Amino acid sequence: MSDPLQPFYAHARQIFDLAQAQQALEWDQQVMMPPRGLEQRAQQLATLAAVVHARVADPGFGELIARLEALGELAEEVRADVREARRAHDRAVKLPGPLVQARTEACALAQAAWVEARAGDDFASFRPHLERVVALTREQAEAAGGANRYDALLDEYEPGMTEGQLRAIFRDLKGRLVPLLDAVRGASRGPDPGLLSRRFPVAGQRAFCRTVLRDMGFDLRAGRLDESAHPFTNGTLGDVRLTTRYQEDCLPSALFGTIHEGGHGLYEQGLDPARFRDPAGQACSMGIHESQSRLWENLVGRSRAFWSHYYEPLRAACPGVLDGVSLEAFHGAVNRVAPSLIRVEADEATYNLHIILRFELESDLMAGRVEARDLPALWRAGMGDALGLEPAGDREGVLQDIHWSAGLIGYFPTYTLGNLYAAQFMEKIRQDLPDLDAQVARGELGALKAWLNRTIHRHGRRWTAQELCLRVTGAALSAAPLMRHLQGRCAEVYGISAGPLTGGGT
Amino acid sequence: MSDPLQPFYAHARQIFDLAQAQQALEWDQQVMMPPRGLEQRAQQLATLAAVVHARVADPGFGELIARLEALGELAEEVRADVREARRAHDRAVKLPGPLVQARTEACALAQAAWVEARAGDDFASFRPHLERVVALTREQAEAAGGANRYDALLDEYEPGMTEGQLRAIFRDLKGRLVPLLDAVRGASRGPDPGLLSRRFPVAGQRAFCRTVLRDMGFDLRAGRLDESAHPFTNGTLGDVRLTTRYQEDCLPSALFGTIHEGGHGLYEQGLDPARFRDPAGQACSMGIHESQSRLWENLVGRSRAFWSHYYEPLRAACPGVLDGVSLEAFHGAVNRVAPSLIRVEADEATYNLHIILRFELESDLMAGRVEARDLPALWRAGMGDALGLEPAGDREGVLQDIHWSAGLIGYFPTYTLGNLYAAQFMEKIRQDLPDLDAQVARGELGALKAWLNRTIHRHGRRWTAQELCLRVTGAALSAAPLMRHLQGRCAEVYGISAGPLTGGGT
Repeated sequence: MSDPLQPFYAHARQIFDLAQAQQALEWDQQVMMPPRGLEQRAQQLATLAAVVHARVADPGFGELIARLEALGELAEEVRADVREARRAHDRAVKLPGPLVQARTEACALAQAAWVEARAGDDFASFRPHLERVVALTREQAEAAGGANRYDALLDEYEPGMTEGQLRAIFRDLKGRLVPLLDAVRGASRGPDPGLLSRRFPVAGQRAFCRTVLRDMGFDLRAGRLDESAHPFTNGTLGDVRLTTRYQEDCLPSALFGTIHEGGHGLYEQGLDPARFRDPAGQACSMGIHESQSRLWENLVGRSRAFWSHYYEPLRAACPGVLDGVSLEAFHGAVNRVAPSLIRVEADEATYNLHIILRFELESDLMAGRVEARDLPALWRAGMGDALGLEPAGDREGVLQDIHWSAGLIGYFPTYTLGNLYAAQFMEKIRQDLPDLDAQVARGELGALKAWLNRTIHRHGRRWTAQELCLRVTGAALSAAPLMRHLQGRCAEVYGISAGPLTGGGT
Repeated sequence: MSDPLQPFYAHARQIFDLAQAQQALEWDQQVMMPPRGLEQRAQQLATLAAVVHARVADPGFGELIARLEALGELAEEVRADVREARRAHDRAVKLPGPLVQARTEACALAQAAWVEARAGDDFASFRPHLERVVALTREQAEAAGGANRYDALLDEYEPGMTEGQLRAIFRDLKGRLVPLLDAVRGASRGPDPGLLSRRFPVAGQRAFCRTVLRDMGFDLRAGRLDESAHPFTNGTLGDVRLTTRYQEDCLPSALFGTIHEGGHGLYEQGLDPARFRDPAGQACSMGIHESQSRLWENLVGRSRAFWSHYYEPLRAACPGVLDGVSLEAFHGAVNRVAPSLIRVEADEATYNLHIILRFELESDLMAGRVEARDLPALWRAGMGDALGLEPAGDREGVLQDIHWSAGLIGYFPTYTLGNLYAAQFMEKIRQDLPDLDAQVARGELGALKAWLNRTIHRHGRRWTAQELCLRVTGAALSAAPLMRHLQGRCAEVYGISAGPLTGGGT
């Protein structure tokens, strides 16, 4: 019998190529495509999804995987590739091709409907699209099997994570966040709420964002930065595309959005070039991906050290806007903790409450306890409970995120997982790079990037997210590092106690 | 046995979707992709080409075609679809998949190498790429079968046309062009050669080009206009993408380039929306496609009627540049006939000599009478013979066109076929729209567009190019209408006899 290695890799790399082609078409749809191209593009994506699905589920591929598993004496890298291929193959075999194709087409159309609906604050026009996506996603989750639909979806984004585990982590986190937010509310001083909504000219924002991105080490010969309704990153290695969204009266939108997507981009550009087309050569999990964006956005991009270098360049890029505003006042403003309506503009602490609300809603949606039509009202009620706010319209409520229109149900929790992983990684980074703050304060971000490249990016899916966390930090994932970080920041900005807060709001 | 119609169309439309995905990725490569994405993109395109090829060659598809052929009582539209599917299937069956994949990857890499080589006037760096493309194209032509490699290539772009027929048409045309050019050379008056190389600000050119494109009826909600090293059009119906190239000191480049690509774009936007994904719903042939671009570029865009409306808007878009230049002088300049080095900037008459040179070179290349390494010298010699000019470097010589790098060998002749078809169609249009000039002189281009939509675009591949020409004009393709047109223009601009010129240079 012939060597199964060569055909195994040839087949797996073709799957990768086609998946990358899908990503390029999705980027194009959101950034470049003229509006009347929508239906054709949806057909192209649906056909490509069917082709990819058939290749992953191909019985011949399954046979190659089984033959390699039977060999039992594989190099570690090959073993990881076979494991990842097995996971994808077993999953694909369970999904009917026509369902995959129908769901892809429905999502492409729903995304475009979402853009219109969001612009017009019109949930009714989006509702039939969302209903179709929800129905097809339930069907897909059921076909993928397991006791629980939501677990089946989670498995795609954060392999090994379950709804039950998440519920426990989120309960713990919420229990610690509530007293912190109470303490912030009771603080005697705090940042100026209007500072970041002054008018920052878009041209200046654009130039400054590009400077920061370049300093982070993002290679613009191997990537692009464009604009789209909902910021995202796609592509890999030599072709990584970031998008952002400039708003003159909301500096954080593009600024932290760009740094955030830049963190994702560095991960993709930092994969092993010899391995990036192989099943285990790709990024580890969405939670780990998000840890990279969050680490740059929050732990670096909102730090005192960062702004002690970048505040002057920002003032120069937007002349006059920040006249008379001290570095301390500005740093306070970018770390202001306050309930708000829009997730992507939320502060580091309340952000996680936005995620927990979405997690609860989509968990209920998948279990059938809730239907798409119920979401606007449930959203308003949930925001009231969690943050004491009510959105004026659905545009600031259930329509604010692209995810559900894109079929990304089970994806939101990875954002908070990313926050948790990022804080835990950062404590280890500070041990390995004790002068990190001094470097950042000189605008030197290279050692940090190199650490991430070496410790996280290059390894792809060599280990699972949980294993990676354990290997890198010596401990399983916990809420403690994130809470230590948030308490430290709040101590800095609000002058409240940095000591451990007990749960229960005492 | 089940109805073969539904699976036949489902399969054919999937092929169409994947081919459109390829086109979108090719557009992206030339307009948007960061340079380091090249290798990945080449792999994606190669994998997609292999998938498309396998689907076209699929024995199951062959069986559906055969079953439909056996039915013998098909509607005219279905018959055309089956005929086109049969042609594509038979061709694909003869081509080995790995060859298709290898050639696609080689072309993607060669195109990028060509961009660099052209910029640096460096044929040596391009030569190994060209050699590989030539070798793989010869191999492909041989696999596709037939007595003659070049005929096999032609069949892809201009079904039914042969090298022998082309040679006869081109001999006739050249024999009539030479005395016309002699007459022009001997004319006592002629246009100012420097007029169009004044400095036309790019912003003004851009605005003017968009105005003309919109007036032509090109729908920018169903298309885009961007910039690339070599202008092209791709996509179809609701997503048609044109590119152009602005040069401050060469107005015709973007101006006539945009009108040219706009003509292609109107063809694609004008296909039957109910049929565009079906085998016979697509554009008829490359020669007919080119007739649409040439008709707009030359027969409309260089006409006296056109400029009697558009000269003032152009002057307004580029203030001061044409001060003191009369409409007559400007119209003369855009119709100046003079030997030149660059095909895409050549006048209407000598343009065809550029094509004939390329036809002869690629015909020799495919027959093995010539190798890639010989091309720079042969190009220089050929330009000397045909036009009495010698390029200073290969950038103005063999490196000027993207086509060979993209594997488009056998494509150049369709440009001159397009000129011939365009002139022949235009004589019929003038019968049907006797006040065309008056309409154009008012900037009203709608009736012409509607005629083309109705008479040519909507029919797709219902008939072959030769049949279409016969049905529309009542005559087979001939050089006479083009020569009548050129003689008329030269009479206008150079004041030479508009009467028929005899061949042989007397």
